Order: sequence, then structure tokens, then C-alpha cells
Amino acid sequence: MSEAGGRPTIKEVARRAGVALSSVSRVLNDHPDVSESMRARVHESITALGYEPNLLAAGLRRGSSRTVGFIVADLRNPLYASIVTAAQRELGGAGYAVVITSSNSEAERDEEMARGLRLRQVDALIVSLTDETHPGVIEELARFDGPVVLLDRQVPDLRNASTVETDHGTGMKRATRHLMELGHERIALITGPLEARPSAQRVKAFLDVHRENGLEYPEDLVRTGSFEPGFGEGSTSELLQADRPPTALIAGGNQLLTGVLRSLRGLGIEAGRDLALISCDDVPLSELHTPPITVIDRDIEEFGRAGARLALERLSDPDAAPRKVVLPTSLVLRESTVRVPSH
Amino acid sequence: MSEAGGRPTIKEVARRAGVALSSVSRVLNDHPDVSESMRARVHESITALGYEPNLLAAGLRRGSSRTVGFIVADLRNPLYASIVTAAQRELGGAGYAVVITSSNSEAERDEEMARGLRLRQVDALIVSLTDETHPGVIEELARFDGPVVLLDRQVPDLRNASTVETDHGTGMKRATRHLMELGHERIALITGPLEARPSAQRVKAFLDVHRENGLEYPEDLVRTGSFEPGFGEGSTSELLQADRPPTALIAGGNQLLTGVLRSLRGLGIEAGRDLALISCDDVPLSELHTPPITVIDRDIEEFGRAGARLALERLSDPDAAPRKVVLPTSLVLRESTVRVPSH
Repeated sequence: MSEAGGRPTIKEVARRAGVALSSVSRVLNDHPDVSESMRARVHESITALGYEPNLLAAGLRRGSSRTVGFIVADLRNPLYASIVTAAQRELGGAGYAVVITSSNSEAERDEEMARGLRLRQVDALIVSLTDETHPGVIEELARFDGPVVLLDRQVPDLRNASTVETDHGTGMKRATRHLMELGHERIALITGPLEARPSAQRVKAFLDVHRENGLEYPEDLVRTGSFEPGFGEGSTSELLQADRPPTALIAGGNQLLTGVLRSLRGLGIEAGRDLALISCDDVPLSELHTPPITVIDRDIEEFGRAGARLALERLSDPDAAPRKVVLPTSLVLRESTVRVPSH
Repeated sequence: MSEAGGRPTIKEVARRAGVALSSVSRVLNDHPDVSESMRARVHESITALGYEPNLLAAGLRRGSSRTVGFIVADLRNPLYASIVTAAQRELGGAGYAVVITSSNSEAERDEEMARGLRLRQVDALIVSLTDETHPGVIEELARFDGPVVLLDRQVPDLRNASTVETDHGTGMKRATRHLMELGHERIALITGPLEARPSAQRVKAFLDVHRENGLEYPEDLVRTGSFEPGFGEGSTSELLQADRPPTALIAGGNQLLTGVLRSLRGLGIEAGRDLALISCDDVPLSELHTPPITVIDRDIEEFGRAGARLALERLSDPDAAPRKVVLPTSLVLRESTVRVPSH
């Protein structure tokens, strides 16, 4: 208890321990130049009084808040939640709290969030950008003093940043080849904006496999623009009601899949019977759909852990150079990928 | 640009504006006692120099960080993500940033998160507790100075807290009655721990409807313990492989539903044919399942907005009394609720 009745102050801690105020401060800030006996006396006094440091003030003195800021494009995507949860476990083990903010897939909000976290003095930033070409957010991240980790994005101008990337290309190539082996020549691809690296990688791989099989670029079958369910639903309806509809469809994201399945239900088209279907990233919906849906999968928890490790690496050694980790994708075959239906 | 070449300081802002340091500080802190012309001169100087206030320092001076802390039990539950996203939109409109932390459904972590956010001086806390009876976290929340909003939890000792509750009872009564009208007498219920308010409310309503229909308490058919998919999967397998299996099942949460459906697939049992099935809260999985699954639904975005409004109410008027908002549930009928199958 405080002698004055209110919350105990750092002065009371010093008085009880019989040491100078500056010594208490050195102990609280983990200063190396503190004897073991000094540390013990101060800690005894802190415990006896129930003193609690003001972390905001402590962070200000040290220039550190022992906090890592996490910006996610869309919290409602279960993928991000898994990434954040895995990263949080890794960072928590190293004594860092995680504060999360979401930009709701608006590039301007990315900038605002990055600025807010920078001004709140987080020690590191882990970022999944909505639009990696948005100049405002790149400028904002460049001004950040601590380590920056980009998730699945590439910003060549940001020499300050480590990255965790996914090899989306290899998975997409396998998926496209698998569909061609089943006889499909009219394959549709729906994915996010080309300004986001995963979409650009997917489209390139998709087109490469067409080229290597001597097939024309199916311009009318590739839809890029957004990772939201509504875009998946609208694109699927357009594609399947066109004069020459596709016989197979690849959804470039689990949120897009939700929209694709809504459209199929509305049109009375059954995946795995009337249409071959592949999605990206395994979620309960792809696993438990009837029939189960073939997916381009990756270890999403390892993705989150890798992001955390890259941040910790440079937090513990500020001279460490930023680096890049690339994680693989694989194709999980299920019953939704059928041969071309014969009408 | 700063005259000294580095980041501009508040002193440089004062010098350029030709005013005292304390005047700049008053402008930055929105002090009412500042003339319009003074405000304009300081803002001109801030813009010209590109000065950025240190929010950590500003928060410390004012005792406010213009930030609301959000503790969620499990970010991987898409429901929480929707709640947080809706609340964030509401709070952002009022000039508050939101920082989110997740306790990963561990009651001890709830306590740690609440403490961390309190020591970081967030202005308000919105909290979805894992276990509303855990003494450590209640103590921690009681020590928090600002408004606390509890989501779907009741802590009578916490006189400081507003609450947004869901009327889980009414939805559960409708669901149970609907199944009984279809002829079911052996109905199973799987839900979270009784220490969490939604589970306790569901079990009570479920038993009340049994009583009002002169049916015995089906002790062997009620499983409480966790909202995780694994608990749903294990409980379903046990229930359906027992000597007298149920003919209908209610899953008390969307994460539990994932586990229930995994178990059904493993056992070769089809919901909507071999078993009547109802879930709680509508998600893509319940909507897009074959057949679509009947759900006890609620307006989850309104739930998030209501939580934000309760926090804002007391942030703008610290004398306002805490209050409680209760939101309704409804039953959305779909094809998964069939009559008792005749074997």
C-alpha cells in the first residue's frame, strides 16, 4: 500500500528501498549497470508497495513500448486471424505485446494506421497492405524507425523492410495443370487487385501454363479486382452466363470462394458435377463443402510465426539486415475437380 | 522542414508562430481557452514545419491516448472479427483509434491483456471475456479508470461497466420448440463453458422448453465445455455413437458447428436427412452447406456498434451511468431441420 493512501509512486519505492530515484529508474529500464543486490532491493520494495510502472511514461523514456503493431487488411478474413494469432504467440514469448489495427481493405486507412502506430511508438510493424503501390503508405512506412515486416507484399523502395512471401505461383501452376490434365481448356480465374502481389503472381502463373500448353490467353475468363465475397459472386454470375462459359473455375481467395458458392447456388450449378472448382487457402467452408473443394494450400500459422521471427530478429539486433523468407504452396486434391462434363 | 535539419520540435513551432511554448501546447491539447487567431497561427506553423506531435507524450500529459482497447477471446472466430470491424468504424468516426488484443480463449491471458491495456492508458475498454467468473480479470477491470463495456458477459461486482447482451434465451427456446414440433424428443445441445453467459442462457432456455413440454431433463444429451471446433467434433461423435443417439442436434456456436460437421462427415451421417441440425450465428459455412443450416441469428454488426456507442457515451460524459443494451435473436429456418427420420 502507498503511504499516502493513493497509488504508490516511484519516489516511495526509492525511499523504502533506501536508494536514489535514478537507481529505481535504472532497474525498471533494465539498465545493465545495476548490481544484483540493488535490483533485489528495488524489486522487494516494488512488490511490497504494489507499485505499477506507467508503461506509457516508461516507453517514452526508453523510446520503447515493448509493443509490436500489426496492420491487417481485413480482420473478417479468417486467414488474417490465424496469421495474427500465430504471430502473437511467438511475440508474446519474447515479451512483446501485440496491438492490431485493421484497415478494412482501404489503402488510405493503411496509411492512417501506420501513422497512428508510428506516433504511438510501437517498436516494430508487421503489415499486410491493401495496395502495395499506394504512395502514401510507402512514405509512411519509410519514416518508421524500427523494423518493418511486410506480409506477401513487395515494396522495392522500402529498403528498411523484411518480407514473408508465399510462393503463390507454384501452387497456381499446379492447379492450372491439374485442370488441363482433366481436359479443361476454358478455365476461369477470379482474384484480387493486380496491385496486390498474390493476385499478380497468380495471374502470371495461370497465363504461363496456358502458354506452355499452346493455349491462347483467355482474356475473357480472368477477373481481377477485389478479394471481397461480392466480387466473387458478381464475377461468377457473369462468367457462367456468358456465351462461352468456362468448364472450370479457380477462386483466388477464401472470401472470394464464399461469393462464388453463393452465385453457383443461385444459378443451380453444382461444383464437382457441372463445374470443376479450385480455391486458395483451406478454411472450414472448402473442407466441409459438399463435395469437398480442391485447394491451393499453405501453412498459414507458419506464415504468421515467420513474420514474428523476422521482426524479433531485428528488434534484438538493430544492425541485422532486413531479409526475405519465402514459404511454399501445395495442391490438395479433393472431389470438386472433375473432368469436363459431357452434356 | 526543421531549421536544425532533424525532426522539427515544439520549440521551433512556437518560435515560428511567435507565441509561447505553453500556447502551442494548449492548441495541441484542444484547450478551450485559446483564441481563434492563436489557433490559426499555431496550425500554420505546424503545417509549414511538418511538425508531428508525439502521441505517447501527448497522451501522458492529457492522461488520454484517444485509443480504445478491445480484448477478444478468439480472433479466429469470424464473429469477433465482424464485431470488432463494426465497432472500429463507429469509434473511428468519433476520432478514436482501436487497438485489439486477443486472449486466445485463456482466462489468464484476459487478465494480462486488460492489465497491459490499462498500463498503456487506453481511454476505454471493450471486452469479451473468456471466463466472466475469473477473479483476476474482474479485479483488473475494476482497477481501470475509464469506461468498460462487457460484451455478452455479466459481472455483477463490476459496477463500473456497461454491457451489450444478446437475448440468447429467446432464440434457443424457438429453436427447441421448432424441433419438438417436428417430432423430436431426443435433442442434443453442445455449447461453451457454463462460466460464459451465452452458454448458461442457452442451457437454461433448452431445459425450460423441455419442462414446459413435460419432457425429462436430457442430461446425457447436453454437453458444455468449450466453443472450440474440437469440442464440437468429440461431443458429436460421442453423442451419435451412444446407445440412444439424439435425432436432432443444436450447435451453440459457429466454431462448434465446424467440429460437428467434421464428425458427421466421419460417421457418414447427413444433416437434414439422418439428423436435424441447428447452429448459432450465421456464417458462410451454415449458409452454403448442403443442405443450408437453420440458425439462431442476431445482428452481429449492430452488436459491435452498440458496444462502441456505450463506450463513447461515457467517454464524452464521464458522469453518465453505465447501462445495459439487450439485442434480440431470431430463428432462420432452413432445410437442415427435418422431421424425425423413420428408419
